[in-house]
This record gives sequence, structure tokens and C-alpha cells, in this order.
Amino acid sequence: MRVTTQAEQTNRNSDPAFTLHEGGKLEVRSAVEVTSHADLALAYTPGVARVCSAIAEEGELVNDYTWKNNVVAVVTDGTAVLGLGNIGPEASLPVMEGKSLLFREFGGLDSVPVALTCSDVDEFVETVARMAPSFGGINLEDIAAPRCFEIERRLRDRLEIPVFHDDQHGTAIVVLAALQNAARFTGRSLGDLRAVVSGAGASGLAVSRILLNAGIGDLAVADSKGLIYAGREGLTPEKAAIAADSNRAGLRGSIEGALNGADVFIGLSSGEVPEEVVATMAPQAIICAMANPNPEVHPDIAQTYASVVATGRSDFPNQINNVLAFPGIFRGALDVRASDITEGMKLAAADALAGLVGEDLAADYIIPSAFDTRVVPAIAEAVRVQARAEGVARG
Amino acid sequence: MRVTTQAEQTNRNSDPAFTLHEGGKLEVRSAVEVTSHADLALAYTPGVARVCSAIAEEGELVNDYTWKNNVVAVVTDGTAVLGLGNIGPEASLPVMEGKSLLFREFGGLDSVPVALTCSDVDEFVETVARMAPSFGGINLEDIAAPRCFEIERRLRDRLEIPVFHDDQHGTAIVVLAALQNAARFTGRSLGDLRAVVSGAGASGLAVSRILLNAGIGDLAVADSKGLIYAGREGLTPEKAAIAADSNRAGLRGSIEGALNGADVFIGLSSGEVPEEVVATMAPQAIICAMANPNPEVHPDIAQTYASVVATGRSDFPNQINNVLAFPGIFRGALDVRASDITEGMKLAAADALAGLVGEDLAADYIIPSAFDTRVVPAIAEAVRVQARAEGVARG
Repeated sequence: MRVTTQAEQTNRNSDPAFTLHEGGKLEVRSAVEVTSHADLALAYTPGVARVCSAIAEEGELVNDYTWKNNVVAVVTDGTAVLGLGNIGPEASLPVMEGKSLLFREFGGLDSVPVALTCSDVDEFVETVARMAPSFGGINLEDIAAPRCFEIERRLRDRLEIPVFHDDQHGTAIVVLAALQNAARFTGRSLGDLRAVVSGAGASGLAVSRILLNAGIGDLAVADSKGLIYAGREGLTPEKAAIAADSNRAGLRGSIEGALNGADVFIGLSSGEVPEEVVATMAPQAIICAMANPNPEVHPDIAQTYASVVATGRSDFPNQINNVLAFPGIFRGALDVRASDITEGMKLAAADALAGLVGEDLAADYIIPSAFDTRVVPAIAEAVRVQARAEGVARG
Repeated sequence: MRVTTQAEQTNRNSDPAFTLHEGGKLEVRSAVEVTSHADLALAYTPGVARVCSAIAEEGELVNDYTWKNNVVAVVTDGTAVLGLGNIGPEASLPVMEGKSLLFREFGGLDSVPVALTCSDVDEFVETVARMAPSFGGINLEDIAAPRCFEIERRLRDRLEIPVFHDDQHGTAIVVLAALQNAARFTGRSLGDLRAVVSGAGASGLAVSRILLNAGIGDLAVADSKGLIYAGREGLTPEKAAIAADSNRAGLRGSIEGALNGADVFIGLSSGEVPEEVVATMAPQAIICAMANPNPEVHPDIAQTYASVVATGRSDFPNQINNVLAFPGIFRGALDVRASDITEGMKLAAADALAGLVGEDLAADYIIPSAFDTRVVPAIAEAVRVQARAEGVARG
């Protein structure tokens, strides 16, 4: 077994991230007092039996008399953890705990990390489906593409509780909101814009899909082999679907060519874009360079050529941060016991998020801060309204 | 869908058990503060990545930098919930939440209810094994016999974290402790006693097994078909194993015959024992009638014939309550990162529990109260010591 070296121990002792993580970041607390036999007799046997019997009679009561409808499982197999790759379930736990913590702090939701040892899609789907009775929603996290697409599709089909792959849709919602405001700031609408998306993993494809659904003028996506176009050999079904709906000019080759005259760059890979290529973008360009910690285009360079610049970092303006989306999305979905989180609910969430910026819109303010307390209530309300309108609300 | 009648709603509104259960009994809280971008950058990206990387390098660090080693999954399939039978996973959730609450309040442990939809033993075992990376221990709960035996055996073999079926072993530990003290109170040792156990479900067989391992003189177990003896047709493997080690006189027929001259009655079914049968027990009899809410022998009647009487109820003396065992057992096991909860650890826990009674031993005090704050530390210490002695401790 690998053991700590002296140098590693010293590093950990001086790193505040390790200090903060000691013993973990979550606690399960009791929401009721149990200090006497009388309390015990209500919270546990014999009183609890009456509650169980009532739920056995009338299943929906589980949402009233247990925590089920306020608890989200954050589920991963550890195959695509941050930028670290397939590090396995145990090593992914700090991220899952962090996510659960954000569900609590931002959404007022209970949340439990569930890191699975699964060797394939079938095992993952079966396992989550079997444990679904315990949870009000399933947040999928850090699962490698393309398996994440099939997992999410099958679980959404099978379960009556919301299933949401945050790496796809959380990112997509926040990017869409940012882009709506960036377009408005530069006096245009989404339909006026041609975008180039760098990265065709979970987030790249989901961002592309939501932008197409929201009516972007055109977009082209590039993966490690270059631009994706209809008919390119060896495309996964998800890439082929995007190819069919995008890149109307049929551009091929490297991303550099597509950026020539493009209005928008969306970076969701770590591939650096040289300054001379950035310089070829259209006037009033919009650059969202979200690689972390090193944006695909450094903000100082981006600033030189673009009207609006966003990154994934908190130390630059316009941070594209998923925490702007997922707490409000689940808060709203669980509030109305939605059976699904639909594309319409995602678009409504993006609209609500963008709308909060209002008249304060500026080059360095196209998206609210993660700590803006208006964000979660606004998104949750938009999600509730849309869920009811689409008939997926059950409560 | 079945919906609430007016009368049911009125009943629920006036029942404090329902009031207490509104919204559930548990909460997940953050154990760290996240109020600024700087906090976020440590608890989540980018800081969390360093913690993930360290665990990926050196797996054991997951126990230091996540909550894994303090969190117990309370897992059921809802097939044998309290006395209510197979009411399914959702309806079992109030019991599982109650259990998690007791883990917190009594053991200082985090705990998560996981109610599974599983159609067979294989599915249950696979599901729990796949989610094991997220938890420090597995408490099995309210699973029907005989499937509970195979599930526990296979999970103990397969997992490197403790797996403990509380309905079996929690009850067994507390009964053993009570019986040790009842024997001492009546001037005898366990080896002097002949016991009759009513009920051969999960708890009946586990109690019988631990009493045999602790050296009881003899015992006979009865199921719904009468006394279990070696060679009786149609015995499950678990019953056959107990038959081979018990009932040395080869008694057959109903439980009444076996009680004639018996020293101990242990009730773990709901079958009432008539007063005239209780009257045939040996002098200085010990009666543990644990059916809830109606003990197999009413305490007032038991008192007439027995020297020591225990029940499962909190409104009579000597309550046999599992909460005396499982919080300390898991507290101790997780403290030393035990890979298993062995029979030796269970016996040590019973000894420690019995030992707390000390010189205060009396007919109405053979077992400490559930609210005796000495219980969990004493059991946890005994479990830690025994785990180290047996070489199953890893930390």
C-alpha cells in the first residue's frame, strides 16, 4: 500500500484545502428532538409504525412525512472528476461532498454523495434505479462522456423523480444566460450570433444543444479531431445529432478556421487559443473561456479583442459557475414534485438567471454572482411555473 | 391513486407521531462555512482537486478527508418492517430515518437511509456492494428472513467495511447482556440455564446463536410449526444449524412442553403464552417477553412467577432496546476502521453493556436505560479493544 512521504505530509499540513476537509464537509443531523422515552416512542417504535402504515396505504404521503422530497443524491462513478479524469469513486468523494454542501447552502436541500463502483452503463442505471425510492432527485456528476448521455437518458425514462446531469445542463443553463446578456449588451439577439464551441464532451455538447434550442444563429463544435460536421467518420450518436443541427456552412478542419469572423467563442476544453486566432474574430466578439485554472484565452488577451469576456474563475468578472443553476433547478423541481427536468424548464431557468442582471448590465456584469441571494428563488420560481405549464408538476 | 379520506386526515392531524414526522426527521448540514469565493475555492473547485488527487494517490486518505469513515448507510428492502411485514421501500423510510437519527443522537455518527427496490438477494447484494465506496459501514435493517442471512453473509464476505444486520445482532447483544445480569441476580451463571426461544426469524435465530456461543446450558427454539429439532423436515439452513447445536433433549411439539421446568423464556414472536404454562417454569424463572406492543406474557403475570422480567416496552422496567447496542458497536468499529464486526466483538459489546449495571443490579435493573450516557462509550471501547485483539482494526 502506498503511504505518505514526509514531504507530502508537510504539504498537506500547510494547505488550507486539506485542513478544511478534515473529517469531511457534511453532517447528518436530527431535525427533531429525541431526549426522552416519549420522544423515542414517536420518532421510532411504536409511533413510527403509524406513519409507515399510512404511507403503505397512500404512497404519496412519503413526500409529506419523510425527507425524501427534500433530498438529492449526488451520484458518480468517478470516471471524469474535474479535470483529473477517471480517479475512481473514493477519490471523487470530496467533489461529491462539495456538491452536497452547495445544495444545502444555496438550495436549502438535503443531499447525499453516492460514489459507485460500476463497470458499465447497465450497472450504473440499475443501481440508481434501485435506490431511487430513498431520494427526491438524482444529480449525476463527473461521469465520463459518452456513457453519461446514455445513463441520463435511461434514468430519465425509467424514474419518476428528476434526473439531471449537472456537468451537461448546469453549465448549459449558465452559458445560455450569459450569452443572452452578452448579446443584449452588444445590441444583438442570440439569432444574430455565430458561435464556436471548443470541446465536445458532456458540457460542450449540452451547451451546444441548449444554444441551438434557444435559437442561436449558428454554431460549430470542435473535438480533439477538429470541427464536427455531418458525415464525419466515427461520430458518436450524440456528436452526430449535434452535427446534423449545427455547422451549416459545413466547416472542416481545425477550430482556428471557424473562429475567423465568429461572434462567440465558448471554451469547454483546455485547448489554448493563440492570440492571432482570437484577433480574427468578428467585432464585438464574446469570449467565454471556461477552462480552469487556465482559460483557453487569457482574460487580458481576450479583453483586447472582445466586448465581453467570461471565465470559469472567481477572480475575473463574469464567472460561469454551475452553482448559479443546480440549486435553484432542484429547489423548484422538488417544490412541485416534478417528474422530470425538461428542456423547457432549463430554458426557463436560463431566462430567469439572465433576467436578474436587468439594467445593471455591463461588460463585466452579464451574469449574477454566485452569492447573489436572488438567484435561487428566481430560478426555482421559473422552474415551478414551467413544470406546471408542461404538466410535469405533481404537487 | 388512493387518496386521503376526511377521517384519515383528522386522525393524522391529531396524532403527534405525524406532526413530528412532517418533512422528515433528518437534515444534511454543512460541517464547514461557505460564505465567500475564498471558502468556495477550498471546499469546491479548485481546492478540492488537490484533496481528490491525494486520495487517488493514497486510498486510505479517504478516511481522513471525507466523511466516509463516519457515515453508516441504513439499508433495507422494506420486506419486514417492524411488525408490518413487506410494506416496500418507501413506506419503510420513516423507520430508516428513525434509525439514522438514533445513530446521530446516540453514536455521533452520520447516517443515511437507503431503501432499495430489489427483487432478490443478488440484486440487493450487488447494489450495496456498488455503493459501498461512499460509506464507512452498512447497517442492514428490516429485511425478511431467510434472505437477510444470505445478504449479510455475502456482504460481509465481499466488503471491507463492517456489515451488521441490527435486527439480528443488536437484539442478540442486548438480550445476552440482560440474561447475564439476570443470571447473576439469581445467583447463577449462563451455563446453569435452560432457555426457550419463541420465534425463529432473524432475531430469534441470532439470539439463540449468541446465547449458545456465550455458553448457555441449553436452549430450544420454536417457530410457527413448533419446536425446532435436528432432523425436522423442511428446515432452512439457518434453522438446521441451530437445531444441530441446541435442544439437546430433542424436544418436539409445541413450545408449552419445553417451558415446563425451563429457566428462561425469550419471546421474539407475538405468540401469547398462557398463564398456566408460565406457571410450569422452574423457580427463579427469567422472562424476556419482547413482543411490542403486547408482550407474549404480560409483565403483571410474568411478575407472579418469575424473578426477573424484561420487555421491549419503555413503560416497564428492563427494556430490551436495540439502541443500547448498535450506536456503540458502529462507533467502536468505525473508530478503528474495523473491516468486520466479528462474533467476538459482539460478545465483548454484551459484556460491556452488562458490566455497566454493576452493584446496582436488581430485579428491575438488569440492563441500563437507553439514555444512560455511559452505554455508547463503554461498548465502543470494548469493540475497539476486541477489534484490535482480533486483528480486524485498520486504524
